[in-house]
This record gives sequence, structure tokens and C-alpha cells, in this order.
Amino acid sequence: MEAKEKIELVNRYVAAFASADTSVIKDMYAENATLEDPAGADPIVGRNAIVEFYEGAFSVGVTLTLTGNPRCAGNYVAFPFTVKTPDFGFEAIDLFEFNEGGKIISMKAFWGDENMTS
Amino acid sequence: MEAKEKIELVNRYVAAFASADTSVIKDMYAENATLEDPAGADPIVGRNAIVEFYEGAFSVGVTLTLTGNPRCAGNYVAFPFTVKTPDFGFEAIDLFEFNEGGKIISMKAFWGDENMTS
Repeated sequence: MEAKEKIELVNRYVAAFASADTSVIKDMYAENATLEDPAGADPIVGRNAIVEFYEGAFSVGVTLTLTGNPRCAGNYVAFPFTVKTPDFGFEAIDLFEFNEGGKIISMKAFWGDENMTS
Repeated sequence: MEAKEKIELVNRYVAAFASADTSVIKDMYAENATLEDPAGADPIVGRNAIVEFYEGAFSVGVTLTLTGNPRCAGNYVAFPFTVKTPDFGFEAIDLFEFNEGGKIISMKAFWGDENMTS
């Protein structure tokens, strides 16, 4: 998977939050993907469960703003951003790992109490 | 491992580059740690080999500047930064995973051609 494709995917990911479009998100994930948000938490397993997770986030109006350029390496892309909800905000870094078909097979979100911004 | 300890470790890590002090680095890594720089490259395996990798970086005067706060989650810390060498610079994100003893057991550096800054 080319770096350009990964960067475009990250931009579509951020835009999907702005438009609350889970169909965009669903298309990015592999059927057997896992998601840890935050990393180290019990993983959400499988695309359907992952889409439900995003539906929850979108229903409360979560938006993302990149705070730096995506970093592409190997089968990965990592990117720093801020999260805004109606009630609070925080800084995070997401890490996507892709399978050979260009779908996200693993997503880990890195953030903690020290990253709250409001 | 508390988030505060992880953040202090990241700050010591950045300072070790400024002072070219591999003894600080050596103390951070587990005996059987692995390092991928960039992520997806053949891993450097074992603390001694990892220290040699840093000796190489320090010998050419590599320095780091954080460009955002470290993000702590689970057994991880991820942090965005810029790298400067005498010849070029780039943006990166490092991910450290810690063992139960608070030593880095896995380091992955995320950066690619698109992250070159000079």
C-alpha cells in the first residue's frame, strides 16, 4: 500500500467524522479487524462491532483535527490529532495497521488522562 | 507503569540525544527488546544491538524535538517529534511498549519519505 493511499485514507477518516458517515469507516476496515481505544483496552473485534463503536462516537458529535502529518511506514500509518466532543477534548495518536488488501486490520488509539484539553 | 513515569522517560530519551548519552538509553531497554526504525523494517533484536544503533545515531549528531505531548495508554507511550541530523530532518512518531519492569520491550518508529522536512 502506497504512502499516498494511506494519507488519503487518513484524510477520508477525519472527514467521515465531520460528516458522521459510518459507511466510509466501514469500507476502511477488514472483516476481522480489531480496535483498541485506548490501546491496551479490551479489543473490539470484527467490522460490525467496530462500526457500532463509530456510530456511538458520531451520535455524540465527535470531530477530529490533525495536528501533524501522517507518518507512513511498513504496513502502518500513525497520525497525531485532537478530538472534540460537546463536553471535552483530548489529544491522541492513532495507529492503523493494514492488511494486504489495504484494509485496516488493527487500530490502536493512544491517549490518556494527561491528554485532556478541556 | 504510571503515565507520569512514561512521560519522564520520554523526556529523558529526548535529552539523551542532546547529550549523546547511550548509558541513559541502555537503561531504558529490556535485555530482549526489539526495535524497528522505521516500523516494518527488519527488527534490531537485543539491548546490545539496540545500543549500537543509538551509538550510530549519536555519532552523527541526531537530535529530537517533541512536537506534541506524549500519549500514554496501556503499556504504551506514543509521541510525535522532529528529527534533525546535520544533513536532513524529518517528522516521526515513536511508539514504546513497556514490560512489567518498566523497560522498553518494543520500539517502533513511524516515518517515511513524505515526512522529510529538509
